[in-house]
Amino acid sequence: MKIETLTIVGVGLIGGSIGLAAKKRGLARRVVGVGRNTPRLDVARSRGAIDEAQLDLATAMKQADIAVFCTPVDRITEQVLSAAPVCAPGTLLTDAGSTKAKIVAAIEGRLSNKVAFVGSHPLAGSEKHGPEHAAADLFVERWTVVTPTPKTDLKAVERTCDFWQALGARVRLMSPEDHDRALAVTSHLPHLAASALAGILPPELHELSATGFRDTTRVAAGDPDLWSAIFSHNRQALLDALCRYSDRVQEFRRALEAGDEAAIHDLLTQAKRVRDALGS
Amino acid sequence: MKIETLTIVGVGLIGGSIGLAAKKRGLARRVVGVGRNTPRLDVARSRGAIDEAQLDLATAMKQADIAVFCTPVDRITEQVLSAAPVCAPGTLLTDAGSTKAKIVAAIEGRLSNKVAFVGSHPLAGSEKHGPEHAAADLFVERWTVVTPTPKTDLKAVERTCDFWQALGARVRLMSPEDHDRALAVTSHLPHLAASALAGILPPELHELSATGFRDTTRVAAGDPDLWSAIFSHNRQALLDALCRYSDRVQEFRRALEAGDEAAIHDLLTQAKRVRDALGS
Repeated sequence: MKIETLTIVGVGLIGGSIGLAAKKRGLARRVVGVGRNTPRLDVARSRGAIDEAQLDLATAMKQADIAVFCTPVDRITEQVLSAAPVCAPGTLLTDAGSTKAKIVAAIEGRLSNKVAFVGSHPLAGSEKHGPEHAAADLFVERWTVVTPTPKTDLKAVERTCDFWQALGARVRLMSPEDHDRALAVTSHLPHLAASALAGILPPELHELSATGFRDTTRVAAGDPDLWSAIFSHNRQALLDALCRYSDRVQEFRRALEAGDEAAIHDLLTQAKRVRDALGS
Repeated sequence: MKIETLTIVGVGLIGGSIGLAAKKRGLARRVVGVGRNTPRLDVARSRGAIDEAQLDLATAMKQADIAVFCTPVDRITEQVLSAAPVCAPGTLLTDAGSTKAKIVAAIEGRLSNKVAFVGSHPLAGSEKHGPEHAAADLFVERWTVVTPTPKTDLKAVERTCDFWQALGARVRLMSPEDHDRALAVTSHLPHLAASALAGILPPELHELSATGFRDTTRVAAGDPDLWSAIFSHNRQALLDALCRYSDRVQEFRRALEAGDEAAIHDLLTQAKRVRDALGS
């Protein structure tokens, strides 16, 4: 795969890392970064993540062969719909949003046949943000989920998969709904659980929280703007996951109340088995 | 401070690290490690954490100037009570257990005046265990909580504080009950929350769990034997902390059910503020 012009809309941690990876791997001849924030674009350019900064989405889209939208989930749909009409025929549009069903449903059927949109989600990133934390190897050996529907053009799906693989990712296809149900458990629920935990720590206990507390709550440092949008996009799946989580927490509570050490031991053993299987 | 013979009962991660730190800092002329498991004692000796391995507690205690019990919380009381009578006058006994109230209450008033026991808890360690993971700098810049009661001999408290400070730790005095209430929130509850989260991850989602899930559940890899004993020692304080946590989780749930994005944003913002204050 070789791209003449790759356009990245939103040059934060993910967008910046896509640019760095595409340049490092010789995937794109030219990388154009689109943003509203000039200092941020300057950081991306000075780090070599983009060749060219562009404040105007339409101007940037005209030249794009592939465009990736790495903006917050509540902005992607609107940006894709406004960008698509100015694209050259054959342009592939994809995204890096943490939720998929709402975005894909809102875009599907509303683009001309000349361009295609395929939903994507690279399972990479951290509580850090901004192009200053971008890394060329962010996607290497990590999964990227690509979420076609029965209506998605197969060639476009294939091109999307090739794109992420060219950045070093392993690709997995899922429906947008299956993706959202899975990520509710593996990402959105942990964020909620960590935030609830961080949220109840009183100031006088800050200095008594050691590595365990810090690890368990690390994701709670994520940007509330991004995460409240993710939670509301994936509301129902997150509520379902939260229900299963609360049930398990109740099992711990009942075992504690009953002084049933064997039951607590069983719950901890089962959790350890899962955690050990995940590796470090 | 200079110790002729330091006896460490239980040469796992904590016990092994105490030995390494004491040797590296020239705190003890001789370190004796006590355990039931010869291969584990051999690892501790080969790593330089102990000079001498001893399978018999009484033999080891006779020579001790300071003895530190680094065994699981459900074994410390019994070991201290059986070791104390054979100690030379003036021997200081302390421990590294994650709970304090039950241990201190069970020992207090049951030792002769010739020896003293002072409860301690170094806030160090990880989900790893065994002397192979021990490190000489494990306590450096970390807090160790020392938990005297109104009945504890003041000279013994001072000596205990000096001991941990000589290993690099910062020392804080708390009552055993205050310690347990604090650690219920900063350590035991996060372990429960992480275990509940790991416990509900179905096998088919293992590969879709990225760094966020791994960080949030890391502590769930801890030893269920150790942790079920900690949970049952600190049952009431943990139940109280769990109650506050469940209330906060319910606030998230209600905000999600109501589609109240502003409320979710507020909860996430408050959590981020706490987490940012803790540092990495």
